[in-house]
Parts: sequence; structure tokens; C-alpha cells
Amino acid sequence: MDNFTFYSPTWFQFGKDAEALTGACVKKFGGKKALLHYGGGSVVRSGLLDRVKKSLDAEGISYVELGGAKPNPLSGKVYEGIELARKEKVDFVIGIGGGSAIDSSKAIAFGALYDGDFWDFYDGTQGQVQESLPIGVVLTLAATGSEASTDAVITNENGMYKRCADGDVLRPKFAIMNPELTCTLPPYQTASGAFDMLSHCMERYFSHTPEVEFTDRLLEACMLTILKEGKRAMLEPDNYDARANLMWCGTISHNNVTGVGRAQDWGTHHMENELSTHYGCSHGAGLAILTPSWMKYAMKTQGTERFVMFATRIFGCQMDYEHPEATALEGIERLQVFIKDVLKLPTTISEIGGKMEDVPELARSMFHGAPNHGNFVKLTPEIAEEIYRAAME
Amino acid sequence: MDNFTFYSPTWFQFGKDAEALTGACVKKFGGKKALLHYGGGSVVRSGLLDRVKKSLDAEGISYVELGGAKPNPLSGKVYEGIELARKEKVDFVIGIGGGSAIDSSKAIAFGALYDGDFWDFYDGTQGQVQESLPIGVVLTLAATGSEASTDAVITNENGMYKRCADGDVLRPKFAIMNPELTCTLPPYQTASGAFDMLSHCMERYFSHTPEVEFTDRLLEACMLTILKEGKRAMLEPDNYDARANLMWCGTISHNNVTGVGRAQDWGTHHMENELSTHYGCSHGAGLAILTPSWMKYAMKTQGTERFVMFATRIFGCQMDYEHPEATALEGIERLQVFIKDVLKLPTTISEIGGKMEDVPELARSMFHGAPNHGNFVKLTPEIAEEIYRAAME
Repeated sequence: MDNFTFYSPTWFQFGKDAEALTGACVKKFGGKKALLHYGGGSVVRSGLLDRVKKSLDAEGISYVELGGAKPNPLSGKVYEGIELARKEKVDFVIGIGGGSAIDSSKAIAFGALYDGDFWDFYDGTQGQVQESLPIGVVLTLAATGSEASTDAVITNENGMYKRCADGDVLRPKFAIMNPELTCTLPPYQTASGAFDMLSHCMERYFSHTPEVEFTDRLLEACMLTILKEGKRAMLEPDNYDARANLMWCGTISHNNVTGVGRAQDWGTHHMENELSTHYGCSHGAGLAILTPSWMKYAMKTQGTERFVMFATRIFGCQMDYEHPEATALEGIERLQVFIKDVLKLPTTISEIGGKMEDVPELARSMFHGAPNHGNFVKLTPEIAEEIYRAAME
Repeated sequence: MDNFTFYSPTWFQFGKDAEALTGACVKKFGGKKALLHYGGGSVVRSGLLDRVKKSLDAEGISYVELGGAKPNPLSGKVYEGIELARKEKVDFVIGIGGGSAIDSSKAIAFGALYDGDFWDFYDGTQGQVQESLPIGVVLTLAATGSEASTDAVITNENGMYKRCADGDVLRPKFAIMNPELTCTLPPYQTASGAFDMLSHCMERYFSHTPEVEFTDRLLEACMLTILKEGKRAMLEPDNYDARANLMWCGTISHNNVTGVGRAQDWGTHHMENELSTHYGCSHGAGLAILTPSWMKYAMKTQGTERFVMFATRIFGCQMDYEHPEATALEGIERLQVFIKDVLKLPTTISEIGGKMEDVPELARSMFHGAPNHGNFVKLTPEIAEEIYRAAME
């Protein structure tokens, strides 16, 4: 096991009607004037925004609003938010929505305190984010884990490429998590969220670091939960307990308590960024398309051991001691069945509009200003092309 | 799943030589003058105390010292520490050692800011602790989870009874966790620590709250790790990775990420307090003695379902569908084998010097000023007596 630090200071307010405590949470962390950032649509229609405002009013916290956060959030909206945050002198930024509204809020929150261009933290000009306005979250989607993570993923509109900024100060001060808010999600979003969190586990599980029994077991706990509760949430969208288990699991799958002390991969996530950017699929759908092909490549080049563990412990495959690679492959096949039959997500790039001739451009774009991707499998443009091609049809 | 809040803001500095960063951690959280509290003995002899002081010196942090924290820490030492903390105007309290030094440090830290008697937070005069000097920890024993918990257990010398204070402010600001420091522990302490953390999982696992799949799975992850790495640590005390997995597992087993959204029991812990107080055994040994008897009583009165889960998922027992109670009992038997043959802990109260005629006094003392114990099994003095008697020989 490697040395590590772990720090997850977010206050989680979890359960039915939790959004009524948004104002109390802002007050707890010293906020007086907040920028509310959200997508629009369902946050407004469902009355959630009004309930959040009511709770802020009750605590005497003033606010300004910025709607229009999009899936795969864009740099332009961040600049708009930074300008508004500065002009209105807010001391808190609250993201209301899923990972997109939250990541956009995070970028606004640290961008507002930074003299230069916030993109400096995305293109390598600056290192980790060191300073930020405090961030709060009202979560409406169990998926990205951004409610507890150090990350903020933004797409640069000037070239349409997705990058990630990172820093302990980007962990939200509080996260309001009401599973009821996720009961009305369309199946595609539920499924995409479930696969995103499964991928957060897999990016950590496939590691060469030896002697990581405990985090292996925690990751398996998360993955088993996603398989069970993801399926229930698809079959019974209104099932509060399925939604609640999935939501808390999404947080723990990505606050890194499961990933400390070990190398992590993240190659599939980086490859996926190109799919959602180029074809407009959800992040989770893009991951579902790529993951089995990545696994087959990884198994071939890095050995079957971890894939056999995955097959037996997660999908309950019987170990074939004479042919462990058959067991490993069976695990991947069962994952594909879960993706297709349970989550009903696409399984090929062509299904989302990609063509074989796009592959070189996907790989080029992925490595644009970012030379290193992956760890368990150290990706090169050639390897990325091979995996993209395998996932094409 | 029940509504909940979760808040674990401790900075964990984990790995080899981590104690060299004690000074940096105090500085990070704004400390200028610390009270160092420890037991003595190995903390001094091993050179750990000197290394901690050196790291404080390097950051210009001054300190005063208070040794003499005992296993099952006593109220007298807390009063002494409170007086010293006030006189020296320290702004940080650092516990160096296992759960005892840490809990004693926590009580000193909040007692120093409280005008009345710190015991008010133990006897029900006051509720949760709301204010405390910041607490830091240099952990030398994987066991109590106090490095991340909200608890501080102290024994009142005036009557020799153990009680627990609680509050979010008792979560340490930082915890220095170097698994190397645990490699020299005597087997009895290693085993006691391992069983204490196993018990932290079991107190949460045996719950009537329905639909808690995710925390069930997390608890199973912890328990499987304790069985594997606890055994390795007993057989190969110097095995760094066994110690490291066990240490991180001890923290996560008790920071409550595994226990949110569900009722928890804690009856065995309360019963155990009497054994360690009356007979001077370690807390973990007392828990090992009582747990199988508690389980048999609980199974008989609360149904076999959770005990069958425990048997099949933790000890790999084959399910007997015709006789589920046989499966449940087999799980308890395998736990007893683990306690006796792997951990080499005592299995009866008589082994630690107890006699059948002590039982009424144990039960009386347990309920002294504390009428409610247990949740999965709601204990009465009569039920406690029955379990004590079953564990006697």
C-alpha cells in the first residue's frame, strides 16, 4: 500500500426534504450572499429552486441566480458566472443539479478569486486549485460524485475539449442529498449515472499497486451495490430506497476513501471525454461503450488477475482454474449484459453516431496538450485508437 | 434507509514516517502551542515522542507534555490535563498513542473550554459537546477508530464506571497514521484492536433498519478485511501491508461512513465497559468474550436473518435453506474459532477473573444512571444478566 493523504470535510445532509436545510447549511459555513447556479428545466419546474430559495430566505441569506448550466458544461457559462460572482460580491456558490451544474459552480467559485483566466487550472499553467469561494451543492442526480470530490470538469468552447481541474478546496462545504429528487429522472440519466459511478470504482480497482485488500473490498462493496440498486432504480424508478442506496454509493465511490494508497487508472474517463464532446452522449453512456473494450485490451496486456477478481467477486462467476482467462472474459460479458439489458445503454460508438474514420481525430484530440493518460494501461495515441476501434461496432 | 447527516472533516496523513509531518499538520490547522498527551512507555522508548517533538520544533510550535494516560483512561488524568491546558494557554491538544491517549486528549480538549465539570457531558447533564480546542492524533494502535470518531470514552474514578461523550467537534483535525508504529505491538494488543474494530462493524451490522444494502456491503468489506489482515498481523507482526490495511480499516470501520442511515446497536460495547472496568481486560478482549453470547441471544429473540447474512457473507458458510438457524449458528462458531485460534483472545469471563456471583453487580453497574442500552436487542438488566451468565464459562 502506498502512503497517502485523505481529506473529505464535506457536511452531508442526506434524506427526504433535505433541501429545506440549504439555508441552514449556508449559514453554518458562514455564507451571507450566494450565487445559485443550475441548469434550468426540471430544477425550476419541479419547484426545487423555489424550495431552496425559501430556505435561504428563512435564514436571511441573499442570492443571485445563474441558470443555463449544460450537460458537459461549457467554459463560456463559467466566465459569465465569474463576472456575476465578482459584480455581486457573493461569498458562496451553490450548484443545484447533477455533476454539470456542480462542476460549473466549482469553476465559478475558484475562478472568482483568481486574477488570471480560470482555464489556467485546466491547461497546466497552474497546478492544483488552492483558493476558492466556499461551494455548496443541492444534488439531483446520483452519478459523478462531484458533491464530494476535488474535481471540476469543464469543456473549453474554444476547440471543444474537456479538461479537469482539481484541488482540496473544491470539495463542497456541504452537500444536500435528497434521493426523492432522483425518482423522476429519465431512465437514460439514471443508467448513465449508475455506470459513471461503476466506472469510478473500476478506474481505481484496476491497479498494479500490491496489497490493497481493504480498498479492493470497499470498491467491491460499491460495485455490488451499483449492480443491485442500479437495476432496481431502472425497474422501479420510484423506489426511494434503491435511489437512496445508489445516491450514497455514488458519493463514496468517488470521494476517494476507496482509492487511497493505490495507483488509479482513469484512462477510460479520458477517452470518454472525446465521445461526449464529439457525439453529445452522456458521460456515463460513453464510459459504458468504452469500458469492455478497455478491459479486453488491459487483460491482454496486463494479465488476467484483476479481471478474474472482478468476474468472481462482482459478477459471481465460477472460477475456471484451468482457464482463468475464460473466467475473466465471462466477467466482461456479464458486464456487457448489465450495460445492454439492465441499463439499456448503447454499447458501440456507432450507435451514438461515430464512424471508424473519426478514430484518429478522437485520439488526437484526447492527447491535445495532455501527453499522459492511464496508469494500469499507459495509453498512447496508438493504443487509444485500438480501443476506440474495438468499441466502434 | 433513514435520513442522516455525515461529517468527517479529519485530515489523514497515512504511511511510513508520517509522524515527521505532525508539526506541519498543527500549523495547517492554526495551532501555535500544543499539549502533548501520551501514555508513556513505548511512545517514549521507541523514540516516537522525540520524533514528534522534532517536527513541532521544526515548525516553531511550542508544547507542554502530559504523560501517564492509562488503558481505560481515568477522569483524574483528564482533570490534570484540563488544568495544565488552561494554565499553559495551549491552543491544540495532541494525543499520541491508542484510543486511550486519544480519548483522554479529547476530554482535556473540550474540558479546557468548558466552565463546569467536564463530566457533565458524560452523565447526561449536558448533551453533545459543542466546543473544543482542536485535537490532533498520532496513532500507535489500530483499534478504537477514535482518530476519526466523535467519541471519547472515560472511566470515572469516583465509582469506576465508564461513559462516553460525543460531538462533531471531537473529530480530530488531523490524524497521523503510520502503520510501522503498530508492527511492534504485543499480540494481545494487536488482537484486541482487531476485535474492537470488528465489533464496531457488528454493532452497526445488526440492525432492524430495512433497505441498507450499501452500508451492509461496506461493513462486510471492513469485516472481511479484519479477518484476513488481522490474521496476517498475528502471524507476521512485521508485515507492513497487513498493518496498513488493518489501520485504515479501523478508521473507516468507525468514522460512521458505514453506519449512516440505519439504527445501530452498541449494547455489547456497553456491556463490555463493565468487564474492562471490573477485571482490567482490554476493551477488545471484553468484546470478544461477550459477542458470541450476545449473538446467540439476539438470534433467538430477533430472528436469524442478519446472522445468516453474517455467516454466509463473512465466513463463507454454505446456506442451509432447510435450517437457516444452523447456518447462523455456524457463523457464530466460526467467529469463536477466529477469536480463540487466530486472535488467541479469552472466550469466557471466568478466564479474566470473573465469577458467576459478579453478574448482578455487572448489570447493576451498567445501568447506573444510564437506563437505555442496545437497539437491535433492547437490553434490560435481566437480559444483560442472561448474556453475562452465558459468557461466564
